[in-house]
Amino acid sequence: MIVFTVAVLLLAGGSGAAVAQSGGQTGNVVKYHATMKDVKYVYGVAEPVARLKPGDILETNSVDAFGNAIQKPGDTMSMVKGDNPLTGPFYIEGAQPGDTLAVKILDLQVEGNQGIGAFAPGFGALNETSYTPMLHPPLPEKIWFYPIDHATNTATFQALDSNFKVKIPLHPFFGCIGVAPAGGEARSSIVPAEFGGNMDSPEASVGNTIYFPVNVPGALLYMGDGHAAMGDGEVAGTAIEVPLRARLQVSVIKGQKISWPRFENDDAIMTVGAYRPLDDCVRIAFTELVNWIHNDYGLSELDAYELLSKVARIHLNEMVDPNYVIVASIEKKFLPSKKR
Amino acid sequence: MIVFTVAVLLLAGGSGAAVAQSGGQTGNVVKYHATMKDVKYVYGVAEPVARLKPGDILETNSVDAFGNAIQKPGDTMSMVKGDNPLTGPFYIEGAQPGDTLAVKILDLQVEGNQGIGAFAPGFGALNETSYTPMLHPPLPEKIWFYPIDHATNTATFQALDSNFKVKIPLHPFFGCIGVAPAGGEARSSIVPAEFGGNMDSPEASVGNTIYFPVNVPGALLYMGDGHAAMGDGEVAGTAIEVPLRARLQVSVIKGQKISWPRFENDDAIMTVGAYRPLDDCVRIAFTELVNWIHNDYGLSELDAYELLSKVARIHLNEMVDPNYVIVASIEKKFLPSKKR
Amino acid sequence: MIVFTVAVLLLAGGSGAAVAQSGGQTGNVVKYHATMKDVKYVYGVAEPVARLKPGDILETNSVDAFGNAIQKPGDTMSMVKGDNPLTGPFYIEGAQPGDTLAVKILDLQVEGNQGIGAFAPGFGALNETSYTPMLHPPLPEKIWFYPIDHATNTATFQALDSNFKVKIPLHPFFGCIGVAPAGGEARSSIVPAEFGGNMDSPEASVGNTIYFPVNVPGALLYMGDGHAAMGDGEVAGTAIEVPLRARLQVSVIKGQKISWPRFENDDAIMTVGAYRPLDDCVRIAFTELVNWIHNDYGLSELDAYELLSKVARIHLNEMVDPNYVIVASIEKKFLPSKKR
Amino acid sequence: MIVFTVAVLLLAGGSGAAVAQSGGQTGNVVKYHATMKDVKYVYGVAEPVARLKPGDILETNSVDAFGNAIQKPGDTMSMVKGDNPLTGPFYIEGAQPGDTLAVKILDLQVEGNQGIGAFAPGFGALNETSYTPMLHPPLPEKIWFYPIDHATNTATFQALDSNFKVKIPLHPFFGCIGVAPAGGEARSSIVPAEFGGNMDSPEASVGNTIYFPVNVPGALLYMGDGHAAMGDGEVAGTAIEVPLRARLQVSVIKGQKISWPRFENDDAIMTVGAYRPLDDCVRIAFTELVNWIHNDYGLSELDAYELLSKVARIHLNEMVDPNYVIVASIEKKFLPSKKR
Repeated sequence: MIVFTVAVLLLAGGSGAAVAQSGGQTGNVVKYHATMKDVKYVYGVAEPVARLKPGDILETNSVDAFGNAIQKPGDTMSMVKGDNPLTGPFYIEGAQPGDTLAVKILDLQVEGNQGIGAFAPGFGALNETSYTPMLHPPLPEKIWFYPIDHATNTATFQALDSNFKVKIPLHPFFGCIGVAPAGGEARSSIVPAEFGGNMDSPEASVGNTIYFPVNVPGALLYMGDGHAAMGDGEVAGTAIEVPLRARLQVSVIKGQKISWPRFENDDAIMTVGAYRPLDDCVRIAFTELVNWIHNDYGLSELDAYELLSKVARIHLNEMVDPNYVIVASIEKKFLPSKKR
Repeated sequence: MIVFTVAVLLLAGGSGAAVAQSGGQTGNVVKYHATMKDVKYVYGVAEPVARLKPGDILETNSVDAFGNAIQKPGDTMSMVKGDNPLTGPFYIEGAQPGDTLAVKILDLQVEGNQGIGAFAPGFGALNETSYTPMLHPPLPEKIWFYPIDHATNTATFQALDSNFKVKIPLHPFFGCIGVAPAGGEARSSIVPAEFGGNMDSPEASVGNTIYFPVNVPGALLYMGDGHAAMGDGEVAGTAIEVPLRARLQVSVIKGQKISWPRFENDDAIMTVGAYRPLDDCVRIAFTELVNWIHNDYGLSELDAYELLSKVARIHLNEMVDPNYVIVASIEKKFLPSKKR
Repeated sequence: MIVFTVAVLLLAGGSGAAVAQSGGQTGNVVKYHATMKDVKYVYGVAEPVARLKPGDILETNSVDAFGNAIQKPGDTMSMVKGDNPLTGPFYIEGAQPGDTLAVKILDLQVEGNQGIGAFAPGFGALNETSYTPMLHPPLPEKIWFYPIDHATNTATFQALDSNFKVKIPLHPFFGCIGVAPAGGEARSSIVPAEFGGNMDSPEASVGNTIYFPVNVPGALLYMGDGHAAMGDGEVAGTAIEVPLRARLQVSVIKGQKISWPRFENDDAIMTVGAYRPLDDCVRIAFTELVNWIHNDYGLSELDAYELLSKVARIHLNEMVDPNYVIVASIEKKFLPSKKR
Repeated sequence: MIVFTVAVLLLAGGSGAAVAQSGGQTGNVVKYHATMKDVKYVYGVAEPVARLKPGDILETNSVDAFGNAIQKPGDTMSMVKGDNPLTGPFYIEGAQPGDTLAVKILDLQVEGNQGIGAFAPGFGALNETSYTPMLHPPLPEKIWFYPIDHATNTATFQALDSNFKVKIPLHPFFGCIGVAPAGGEARSSIVPAEFGGNMDSPEASVGNTIYFPVNVPGALLYMGDGHAAMGDGEVAGTAIEVPLRARLQVSVIKGQKISWPRFENDDAIMTVGAYRPLDDCVRIAFTELVNWIHNDYGLSELDAYELLSKVARIHLNEMVDPNYVIVASIEKKFLPSKKR
């Protein structure tokens, strides 16, 4: 199902924001630098900031989830103009509704020397939110600053109420990555759904390919909400929030229609389920995974279901955005050879 | 909070089902062999099958989740007399309501050469169940047999609808382990809750210590539902179901009251949340973990909450029993030194 | 399905706590007066306080949900020894597992001149609870006293923070009514489930018959948690909590097995779904209702499903106990004649 | 809070699709006839089909949820081009973000002599859907036709699998009514959310006023998905689906910001909660209702919470759309006089 011939996809590059010949790499390199002047706050149809051909490599960046507004002790959440400003959209030539867009993450680097953690109003698994409201007074606003050490590839947690510090290994990923939704919808940058979006998936990191359904001509790819590291569930509402620099390669799988985002690397196939409650996320991700195994690897649906009950992995990405996100996966070593 | 002096607990052994001096081990060894004649189907107050002193080592066994009723192709689920027959209860001397029972799992061995997987009626994340009923016809009954190879420590999945086979590494654990509930309740062996029970936690395996609230004199420990291996979520309703042989060591932490089961090993502390939907499991497990960190490691609650948002792990154990189970954890390397 | 011949059931009364000939009524009258000395806190197998024959009328009473511990301003929730003390159990002669117990409520009277409302710790749809915990400070303890006026059949709400008062019409019902659970379970008096229990159903009131599955010999009927009036959802965690005096008539439907409690009166049939989230309550109650219509009124399951989509009623009884409760119903005027 | 001076709002009418002087009524009458040529499938910013002034009366119509595509036995769901085609948008002069739009429903008439019920793919509380997927085969497609009798104001259910027929009283309402969402979002016509939309609220009927938050200039009002009658929960996925003719009056409450839709009539105030699971719908609707009572009627929040626990009503509108909908209400007779 995910089979495609690279040769077909890697058409010669055209004009972009800035196109350079990539050395040993297939595809041209398109460079685009995002600033707060041209970020977006919805996934939807908008004027592309650059155009990519299948096989092209995109070098770009993202501001942090707060639009880089929080910089030093004393700054407050009221200084944030909008959550999750997005870089994009990028138009991918030849991508048409009914195709699948593949985005391979080649490199991600944390920009700057500091990340932010905060109790963002309305976010958090252990406090009342807009969609799980209660009558308690809200938790107090708190902001933590995480010094980033690029040499050791760590961020440092510093407790606010005691002297404790501890280093946390970096695992940079895009909290937001997605395409224009189907059916003429436009969705807020805080929402994850069928089009991807604010999935807060640590799987959106180097070495993995992300597949999205193409819903509009050109797919219209967006990304943002860089995370330097995050715990499962993102329970207090934020990761270590950072600006990112990224290298991504895009391709198009013609005529393959998927319903939800998927991840893949050399070792595993992974499916996304997003909504609430988490129970439904699990159901979505696993029916997707059963279907993927059935269609591409040839097990019957019930054999696939049984096998998953013995070897599947579930990664609860976040339970703090309007929709929650689960990734279900199986290692390829447990699967038959892929059908051709 | 979990600090206790082993010397205090390891009182000289008394009479049990069968007591032997343990060689280099602390505590006596109590042996008890369970058969289908004396299994139980509820966690509650019942005549103890043996008595243990704190520090004693229990050598026992469990029949499989089907009471060993499914043995060969052609056997059907209608032959199963009751789900999750339990070994026990074991009375632990000195355990009183308000204490904590600690059970360290020293050894677990799969008995026999075969495990079972099945679509158990009423179980399964992708089929209608008693508590998520629908109007569809149910999925057909299916049973998979998993040959166990003790030499390679693997079980083999054999597809029913194609020729595919694959080996799965063994990770034996008790699907059921728990104590008599609080407040005079008695609960079915298929239910996980505050008293533990059918948690289907792969964490109930060698090297880990499980903590339970003591609700009745003697705590009354039960175990069963052996699993040779299981995928996250146990999505089709069963693991590789097997009889087990076990060595466990029990101790009592006097005067420490916990609300939910906990796990601990050298590397991590782990808390259990059980109910439905999964959203509430997450909330329970994380408030427990915040409290544990706050009380034993001295971080403020809000610092603990923030730190977990950056480094916590979530393990979705099962979404198929009447209550669902999540384990939340943090590695000790991210925590301050334990308070004394 | 619910057809039974009263003549068959109304065998001559035997000995009870106190048996009197009922005048024009069928069946003997058994009187039993409950006090805090002999209340129970679990639904389970216990020594019966009285025995009833099918057709007998029970005259009894219940203490309030707080064991009548809260009496005047200044009293606190810490004075409450246990939630929902239960009157019973009553043994119904001839009721055997696999039968259905029918309990018709003939009369309910509020005892005394005052009802209580309170923020009971751990209860409430808009505050954190044991099973939906959060990190907020809890809402403050508050107790409201509701003067009862028997002449006008009203209770009066008196605001604590302003001078506002308003009269509320009485609709007395048992918050708790249920039988011993199946499978050897014993369940807390705060839990509603398949055996009934803390359903907080205003349907448990005069004029309605309640059906319960019989799980143990004698069924073992309990009741308590009297409510003088309650809003849908019981959202703050309590109704107007009162002691009650009751007249009930019991009968047994031999050989009819039901899975969940049901209500019926001259105008409607009603089914109960209890668990969480509410979504699953709805699914349980409606599959029960589809089955009831299909089996007793002869519509196909899919016709019944469609018809319910046009005329069903849903009553959200409570969303504050450990399990939540929904009652689904259809008016008999929309149904075919009952099959005989 | 909902106080406004009609005199201020009823500015002289301007140009519309068709403007006529309304006789004894305040405000002009604007007529707009919707056809399948100009329906919309998202709530969002689009070219207005007509403009209204506050106080104006709109006379318009809507096609049915299937775009009138299902007309006779043998027609299939595959003939439906899109769910819930919407009439609109209507631009309301003077409505600005931060205001509240009030829509009073003056008259609703079922058009034609037939309504439709169907198992719409992906909808239904007792079958698997896109967001609660399972591995069962789907329920078979079925369509029921409901003859409408305008003389008796009834529709007739006719069983497909037996000879049973029964009349159902008409209660016409808009399943869909809403405005352009906030934050630049555009949402499918099958979704209910903060902007209203596919709420399937029987409260959207004659005699009630609906309040919406104004998110964009002109508010941009849409309506559709006419229902002749519907059961609570709309459990099989459809009501009696019909085209409607409508008379509505719009007004604008300047400077009043609400977060979710609200209903009001002479007897009650009502709030909407929409998402999933239903638990969160209840939390949203009741925090909204507590706030409304607190702000407009002067009870403290905790007094309001307590009072609602005694007298509130909950109406489960639907549990079949992507988001579920609950309406919570309180009768005005239980409230203090409104603050001015």
